[in-house]
Amino acid sequence: MDLQIVPVTVPEDTNVIIGQSHFIKTIEDLYEVVVGGVPQARFGVAFNEASGPRLVRVEGNDDDLRQAAAAAAQSVGAGHVFVLFLRNAFPINLLNQIKACPEVCRIFCATANAVQVVVVESPEGRGVLGVIDGATPLGVEQPADREARQAFLRKIGYKR
Amino acid sequence: MDLQIVPVTVPEDTNVIIGQSHFIKTIEDLYEVVVGGVPQARFGVAFNEASGPRLVRVEGNDDDLRQAAAAAAQSVGAGHVFVLFLRNAFPINLLNQIKACPEVCRIFCATANAVQVVVVESPEGRGVLGVIDGATPLGVEQPADREARQAFLRKIGYKR
Amino acid sequence: MDLQIVPVTVPEDTNVIIGQSHFIKTIEDLYEVVVGGVPQARFGVAFNEASGPRLVRVEGNDDDLRQAAAAAAQSVGAGHVFVLFLRNAFPINLLNQIKACPEVCRIFCATANAVQVVVVESPEGRGVLGVIDGATPLGVEQPADREARQAFLRKIGYKR
Amino acid sequence: MDLQIVPVTVPEDTNVIIGQSHFIKTIEDLYEVVVGGVPQARFGVAFNEASGPRLVRVEGNDDDLRQAAAAAAQSVGAGHVFVLFLRNAFPINLLNQIKACPEVCRIFCATANAVQVVVVESPEGRGVLGVIDGATPLGVEQPADREARQAFLRKIGYKR
Amino acid sequence: MDLQIVPVTVPEDTNVIIGQSHFIKTIEDLYEVVVGGVPQARFGVAFNEASGPRLVRVEGNDDDLRQAAAAAAQSVGAGHVFVLFLRNAFPINLLNQIKACPEVCRIFCATANAVQVVVVESPEGRGVLGVIDGATPLGVEQPADREARQAFLRKIGYKR
Amino acid sequence: MDLQIVPVTVPEDTNVIIGQSHFIKTIEDLYEVVVGGVPQARFGVAFNEASGPRLVRVEGNDDDLRQAAAAAAQSVGAGHVFVLFLRNAFPINLLNQIKACPEVCRIFCATANAVQVVVVESPEGRGVLGVIDGATPLGVEQPADREARQAFLRKIGYKR
Repeated sequence: MDLQIVPVTVPEDTNVIIGQSHFIKTIEDLYEVVVGGVPQARFGVAFNEASGPRLVRVEGNDDDLRQAAAAAAQSVGAGHVFVLFLRNAFPINLLNQIKACPEVCRIFCATANAVQVVVVESPEGRGVLGVIDGATPLGVEQPADREARQAFLRKIGYKR
Repeated sequence: MDLQIVPVTVPEDTNVIIGQSHFIKTIEDLYEVVVGGVPQARFGVAFNEASGPRLVRVEGNDDDLRQAAAAAAQSVGAGHVFVLFLRNAFPINLLNQIKACPEVCRIFCATANAVQVVVVESPEGRGVLGVIDGATPLGVEQPADREARQAFLRKIGYKR
Repeated sequence: MDLQIVPVTVPEDTNVIIGQSHFIKTIEDLYEVVVGGVPQARFGVAFNEASGPRLVRVEGNDDDLRQAAAAAAQSVGAGHVFVLFLRNAFPINLLNQIKACPEVCRIFCATANAVQVVVVESPEGRGVLGVIDGATPLGVEQPADREARQAFLRKIGYKR
Repeated sequence: MDLQIVPVTVPEDTNVIIGQSHFIKTIEDLYEVVVGGVPQARFGVAFNEASGPRLVRVEGNDDDLRQAAAAAAQSVGAGHVFVLFLRNAFPINLLNQIKACPEVCRIFCATANAVQVVVVESPEGRGVLGVIDGATPLGVEQPADREARQAFLRKIGYKR
Repeated sequence: MDLQIVPVTVPEDTNVIIGQSHFIKTIEDLYEVVVGGVPQARFGVAFNEASGPRLVRVEGNDDDLRQAAAAAAQSVGAGHVFVLFLRNAFPINLLNQIKACPEVCRIFCATANAVQVVVVESPEGRGVLGVIDGATPLGVEQPADREARQAFLRKIGYKR
Repeated sequence: MDLQIVPVTVPEDTNVIIGQSHFIKTIEDLYEVVVGGVPQARFGVAFNEASGPRLVRVEGNDDDLRQAAAAAAQSVGAGHVFVLFLRNAFPINLLNQIKACPEVCRIFCATANAVQVVVVESPEGRGVLGVIDGATPLGVEQPADREARQAFLRKIGYKR
């Protein structure tokens, strides 16, 4: 058993969602989730088929993001893992619909940060153990930080 | 801290779903999810109680799959983990209802592949870090592969 | 890459839910989930902001649990991870609403057990690989154990 | 075809949820939803079985609310309709779990108001057409009303 | 405004689900919900397109049920209403996935009973006001009825 | 008891969603659902408070749509009903999140058609019985219609 760190570089102005699913139908269902969720979204999604032809399956409506997703999924190399790169939309817009996709098992992360994927490798294959999603916290928010946070969420309109 | 690989052999014509839950009610709720989800399903499900009597709790409607699930859960040995073996039905039929079960935390995998569960062991207990679900991809699908995939999903009737 | 075990001590009569999310809005949405879910609940929840100010963001209606959650989140130190301590309510009361929170990616555990969080650390940050939630099972339930389990769940009123 | 108004008087400090479901399993599943949702809730729920024995099926943990629910369900008299009376908890605490109950078709209302149920009757049976849930609005909120509303929701802690 | 009762005769060994949706994508999504939910299910589903070509849109894997669904949807004649006839499966197996279909607004009923749909007609179109789903209850269950109900649900395996 | 038809005129390039909810928190939660669902959406939403001040509560990010929603909700005049007008987004983008809003009971319709709301009025208040959403179907689709439908859904990218 060998542990490795696989960096996933997120393209500019892009978010990434990485998850575990089962079955190649995932790739078409995730396509429909994004297209049916945010009309303006640009995206590419790739899924590692884990038996039979064992191909990285790819869908999306943006060639660059399709290629980036395929490359990231292949570099992770773990069976049944998918990588979704998303532009003109945010994970919060789509995450509940992705979690409700009938093939999706779990979501490792949804982020605009650079991500390091911790991968285990055995003679049989590879698996994701976890992700390093951004940097460690520097401290606990104080009252002024809390007010700034609440004001920020309301300024961008996310909270009333 | 010690890392181990625990192989989970999936019986023929069977799928496995492995997850993390909390509380022994899980086992009865998952029973009802499967029975209420696919009338023809045969299954066994086992859950590792993590305190008190600390027994592998087992339900299902098929003795072989009950025993296989109990053996697999015990070999993983991580607290609050469950293993569901499923026949005459597929994870896609049930996964959303399992994810919505009020005790279920997360799903590690849903697959017909042989699975290797990566387990951590400390003096206090064991935990699942991840799964190796099938083999690594061999390449990225090309246009002909994509057409074959789309045709296959429609031939089996899963996509319109 | 360095692996560590971070113990999370759960205060008396308290449960803990640990998960991965994205974006500071999590902390306000989880606040609303708990308050809107169980009127009598007492809780504290903390979230590790992973970019920008990188503060542990904290909400709740109980000062002790707020401080305990902030301390636990900081000791885990992984970006986008949250820790929720809950009293006068149980994870089963709230877990489906927490899973459905639009920023929540996944739940690592929901438990009253002492928890050990397995954390990976790289120069870029930290990530949760898994949890040790309680102790390993001692054996498989026998018919008398099963009857006792079914009777217990009905005595506490959770199952009909 | 005959249209009638059936008043449903909601007991003091109580809320009512009225819905359409299918199958007597509803009554046990709704019992588990409430007990698993708010530990402190007191309730009674009744469901109009629409074939076979055609009995009003009743569950709950409070005799008065059980009787009130049975009486209300019977006075509505429409097949597959359920009435849930709820105390020490609010519809907002439970409504999503009730909507997600696998037998529940739809919710007509969730309210502390007196409710009038509009019922159609034919020689074959009765059906709910709609509900009058409280009184008609008196006007559109002005800026001061809006501020008062936002302040109120935050004072009771429901919104951050 | 004219009120009418439209009877929907449910074929033998068949259940019907009637709902309100929006947009012709409904028909393909409901197809995938059923096929992805119960592998053994036989069904037909029809949806009343309410603008443009205004055709009854039909899908399914059983010709008789397709025709029956189309005839029922047309006889109801209300815009954006769908009718699903289902065999070898029960509404409980699929209802949550149907409710979660992104175009579905609400479910009027899910039943094996003969159904009368109450329809309103204006010069502009038709709408469903409600359903008479089976017959009115004959009385409230007594302790012996309750025991028989609980025993029945456990005998058929739906409850533990 | 008096039945009336209330027309709801949908502004150009706009969709309407009409539903039943409970409690004024609805209006803030629906605001957050839309803003968190489609970043580019423009909308107004109004809710008929049914007790206390009994005001039409209004939120949104577009003044015209706010006013249109308030006027429509007031003309319907039924307690606990909400009206959402939506531009730059489609009901399919948001409907599942709206259905999952913890105060929402049911959705009457989601449509770009002109809608007629059938309202009942009693001395106590008003209630929605149903909607006429578009026109009645002209016939059942034939094979060529079906092909055109399938091609259309794929041309607009909604189905793969």
